[in-house]
Amino acid sequence: MALLGIDLGGTKLASAVFTEDGSMISEESVLVGDRRGREVGELIARRMNKFLDEQALDGDDIHSIGICVPGIYYQKEGSVWAPNIPGWGDYPLLAELKQTAGKIPVAIDSDRACYILGELWEGAAQGCSDAIFLAVGTGIGAGILIDGKVFRGAHDIAGSVGWMALERSYQDKFAACGNFETYASGDGIPKLTREILAEATAYAGVLRDKPAEHLLAYDIFDAYEKDDPVAKEVVAQCVELWGMAVANLVSLFNPEKIIFGGGVFGPAIKFLPDIHAEARKWAQPVAMKKVAIEPSSLGNHAGLFGAGLLAMRNLKGQS
Amino acid sequence: MALLGIDLGGTKLASAVFTEDGSMISEESVLVGDRRGREVGELIARRMNKFLDEQALDGDDIHSIGICVPGIYYQKEGSVWAPNIPGWGDYPLLAELKQTAGKIPVAIDSDRACYILGELWEGAAQGCSDAIFLAVGTGIGAGILIDGKVFRGAHDIAGSVGWMALERSYQDKFAACGNFETYASGDGIPKLTREILAEATAYAGVLRDKPAEHLLAYDIFDAYEKDDPVAKEVVAQCVELWGMAVANLVSLFNPEKIIFGGGVFGPAIKFLPDIHAEARKWAQPVAMKKVAIEPSSLGNHAGLFGAGLLAMRNLKGQS
Repeated sequence: MALLGIDLGGTKLASAVFTEDGSMISEESVLVGDRRGREVGELIARRMNKFLDEQALDGDDIHSIGICVPGIYYQKEGSVWAPNIPGWGDYPLLAELKQTAGKIPVAIDSDRACYILGELWEGAAQGCSDAIFLAVGTGIGAGILIDGKVFRGAHDIAGSVGWMALERSYQDKFAACGNFETYASGDGIPKLTREILAEATAYAGVLRDKPAEHLLAYDIFDAYEKDDPVAKEVVAQCVELWGMAVANLVSLFNPEKIIFGGGVFGPAIKFLPDIHAEARKWAQPVAMKKVAIEPSSLGNHAGLFGAGLLAMRNLKGQS
Repeated sequence: MALLGIDLGGTKLASAVFTEDGSMISEESVLVGDRRGREVGELIARRMNKFLDEQALDGDDIHSIGICVPGIYYQKEGSVWAPNIPGWGDYPLLAELKQTAGKIPVAIDSDRACYILGELWEGAAQGCSDAIFLAVGTGIGAGILIDGKVFRGAHDIAGSVGWMALERSYQDKFAACGNFETYASGDGIPKLTREILAEATAYAGVLRDKPAEHLLAYDIFDAYEKDDPVAKEVVAQCVELWGMAVANLVSLFNPEKIIFGGGVFGPAIKFLPDIHAEARKWAQPVAMKKVAIEPSSLGNHAGLFGAGLLAMRNLKGQS
């Protein structure tokens, strides 16, 4: 028996065939390009079909399919809200893919849900019943495992941690994506840097050389390595915010483990000890002592593995 | 069939007999006084015995007993951490009460868990599967219902919302009970008032007349009614913090309802519309639109009703 996992990202669509015990048998990916709306749905269906056609040749009998989508998956409706795919404000993906899959069951879930499922299956959350994947990429979201199950809340929106309020008082710039994400995400870090640069009139470091609108989070981490004072200030502020966010997750959810992943962790993994130290100041002390803070062990494969476990759990009737 | 609910508070021990459908048949309470350690455990056992002895007379056949305790209940150990009861740092209450109860099952839970259970049974959370009771009394804690069950986290510490980090940067005064609770709890409000009074040298209002060490949260709400400027500043700060806390609970848990209770709500219930408006600025907007913000409908009976439902759920093997 084999499982097909498909991970739709912002730029590429990755697919892999897994065995029941979490081994990846084969993997491939294609670029999403400038596809939009139905074209993206059709791309997924075509890749799915390709694997279903090949299974006979390869002897990998695909029993179940799991799909990881970049946004929020509404379980009851079978529809996806994916802010970065034009035309996917409320896209009826499940109905569409079920047509292609025929009798083979298809399950879909949000990327953050798939990240924690992937880590549970073959990564840093193995053996955990309560763990959180804090995904810091372009945006910030959390996949939350409670009692071995993905926690979704009343309307599948739970884990919207980018909206965490961490700073008095409210500013209009938080309206687009929330206080935490405004500063400490892949998109937020360059914005925060530009704010600090605007004030640092005497500064003439490397970050000044780059046109402000082209700054990326990676440039700031590079500059940090060169002891750049603005980069150090940006990192200090982000470490404080990441630490406060960890503290809040620890005090509210009392998890066994918090796993950092996403594009920013990545380069920011080296700050995990500082983030841990910051969190220790704020959090409920007993819960804080018991939590482990770790990097993702699957990196950018977490969603793909998660889609694989999703396929298996759906087959077994688990949520 | 009848159920016995017992609610151990800071000052009194309340007991009630309930029918299976949540009607309270009888109720009584005794003062805890200056009892400590084992004396408190013995007091509970004696009240329990009294009800068990009387049941034959009254024809109320008690099938199950639930106990609400002020602190954290560690389920695996059957022990209680109750910061305000001397000698209850790790008190083995379950073993002790089981001896008294004999064959009748006994279940214990933390006050915050019992509050949300009480509201679920006969109060504002009826019909909810995902709801949060935000208890703002001397301290601050939250009882969290997920998928109809009380959420405890990996070590029974989940819902320690008083420790929420809401304000950069860390100050040493947060170490005792957390940033949120330091300001916006029954104990915090007078402390915050004293801080503001110390700065308000020109102020000569009613709050100046009272020795600072005797100020209570109620005095500040009284002064607010008289348009006192310091009281208004304190309330404005607390409304901001309560609103941010609601926002974080909404973005992280995506509940159907958040219920405000505890001694402070109470007098602060009139600020719920302001708290709701503040939360709307910060929270994930879709989740925010779907949540209801309401006062407790059981008031200081929430824990007692919760103990009753706890007794019934234990009998039926539900968590």
